[in-house]
Amino acid sequence: MPSEFELIDALVARLRPTDAVVGPGDDAAVVALSSGLHVVTTDLLVEDVDFRRSWATPADIGFKAAAVTLSDIAAMGAQPRYITAAIGAASGDRELFQGLGDGLQQACEPFNCSVIGGDVSRSPVLLVATTGVGRVKARPILRSGALPGDLILCTGTLGDSAGGLLVLESQRPGHEALRTRQLRPLPRVAAGVRLGELGLATSMLDISDGLAQDLGHLCRSSHVAAAIWLEDLPISSALARFCRDAERDPLELATTGGEDFELLFTAAETNLFRIREALEELVPVRVIGEIEQARPGGNASPVRLLSGGRDRTDSLPWRGRLQGWDHFERRS
Amino acid sequence: MPSEFELIDALVARLRPTDAVVGPGDDAAVVALSSGLHVVTTDLLVEDVDFRRSWATPADIGFKAAAVTLSDIAAMGAQPRYITAAIGAASGDRELFQGLGDGLQQACEPFNCSVIGGDVSRSPVLLVATTGVGRVKARPILRSGALPGDLILCTGTLGDSAGGLLVLESQRPGHEALRTRQLRPLPRVAAGVRLGELGLATSMLDISDGLAQDLGHLCRSSHVAAAIWLEDLPISSALARFCRDAERDPLELATTGGEDFELLFTAAETNLFRIREALEELVPVRVIGEIEQARPGGNASPVRLLSGGRDRTDSLPWRGRLQGWDHFERRS
Repeated sequence: MPSEFELIDALVARLRPTDAVVGPGDDAAVVALSSGLHVVTTDLLVEDVDFRRSWATPADIGFKAAAVTLSDIAAMGAQPRYITAAIGAASGDRELFQGLGDGLQQACEPFNCSVIGGDVSRSPVLLVATTGVGRVKARPILRSGALPGDLILCTGTLGDSAGGLLVLESQRPGHEALRTRQLRPLPRVAAGVRLGELGLATSMLDISDGLAQDLGHLCRSSHVAAAIWLEDLPISSALARFCRDAERDPLELATTGGEDFELLFTAAETNLFRIREALEELVPVRVIGEIEQARPGGNASPVRLLSGGRDRTDSLPWRGRLQGWDHFERRS
Repeated sequence: MPSEFELIDALVARLRPTDAVVGPGDDAAVVALSSGLHVVTTDLLVEDVDFRRSWATPADIGFKAAAVTLSDIAAMGAQPRYITAAIGAASGDRELFQGLGDGLQQACEPFNCSVIGGDVSRSPVLLVATTGVGRVKARPILRSGALPGDLILCTGTLGDSAGGLLVLESQRPGHEALRTRQLRPLPRVAAGVRLGELGLATSMLDISDGLAQDLGHLCRSSHVAAAIWLEDLPISSALARFCRDAERDPLELATTGGEDFELLFTAAETNLFRIREALEELVPVRVIGEIEQARPGGNASPVRLLSGGRDRTDSLPWRGRLQGWDHFERRS
């Protein structure tokens, strides 16, 4: 069996760090940073919790581990620069480490972001913890700046990744676009950086736990509430087709399904034209609701789902899933 | 059971980030960095591989997870600034998360380093992946600069952590100093930073896998070989006492035992006085050997162990363990 150091070499051989002063191999990587604000973020993906090896190749897993961290950096309006990866694996399987290296590199490369180091340990399940450093060009966009009256916008389409998960779980043939959204999510880096430069979004995060839950986080951080207009949620034709076949409600997947990694942000209506113009060539953008005054009463969700102008939150058949993903919730 | 977000809150409540612009709670933390060289490093600790919960409290585990990363930063001659922690846990146990937060904070606080963020996931075993960012004040000290004729130096004492592991494994009473070295290793941050400022060490790393193995890494990076003088290895009185009781050879533990987290570095003999003077008030320093010309022949270990001026490497009863710790090696 290859040694720990041979496995690290096998992974590192797949990386192409572009501008590290010292790359993998020393106690730490060395990078040159310009002065100013930087963002730092960490994500952990664990086998059979966050991915399944029966669906995902090692390269898929490495790709997604990097993508979720790139997405967090983009959601701050920052440019990803460097990523490290800590890997736990049950055995010293060279192809596994090569695949993980390929996936990490493939996710980072389009954004000129370098994988500069990491660590490995033995672990009963496969796991990848990624940490990313990004550079803020102007100001970071936080979750906490949304104001009543702001519009709520999102990039791309929602629910595709949840649809892809259903396709993979049910071993249905086809639906390649949805599978790809689940296995190889594309972080909205260019749009996030552009919004950071533009300075017109009052708050932003990426949709990782589901629209309703993530918008709830944004509302609580901003001390506001929100109304989502269900008719305006962006549903891809691929998801619509899958939902017709599978007799699912695309709006359920769009509001409760996690891992879309689209950007969710707020802005004053007066800035809508400039935002659309700035993002025009990068990503589709949709207005999907409005920020409201915080409602009294502590524990209720701050997010209302409207259809035909009326609040439907409590009558939706899938209202029980609006809280989205919790890693420590008991599931039936 | 507490939700994922309540567990994160329980952990974050134990942290005291001192100078993050935005601390835990958003997609990423925001920090202000000065321009120039920084180091980035990641470590992964996994239950029953890197620690046992029967010996180590949650605070011990959090402490050690931060300490190993602080030590890597120090071994580059850099000042630790920020740490993130990704945590996998089997269940949502609030006291576990509070304890981990306490330990992370306790390890970082003395060095003015802030825990600024992280992630949690469910995992069949407890694991903590830490990533640290440090600032290089002058130049980083790499593994690759050792020159033939350089002296080999180390801080503190060697083998204590391995002794502590034996104490814990055998459930012997007493030997508190050794247990503490294993459970709460103190990274040599002040000494590492001072050596970074001084600029006289030609190479440096921290001893995490064992002196013989880590010195081997340094030799291979520097394309040199090394002789260790066994009589000169620094053995603590606590380790000497334990080894008398347990009928172990302290030199075995000092050369093969991992997790000492002492600094191992090289320097020209002409700079020895200035180095001793600079570190005098920070840490004991011992000259333990000498860098030699690389020897022909590829696979042999570049490290010779001398006693009484003669090479004893091949006659030591514990020569089979000189390769130190490999996470993927099969053990008897």
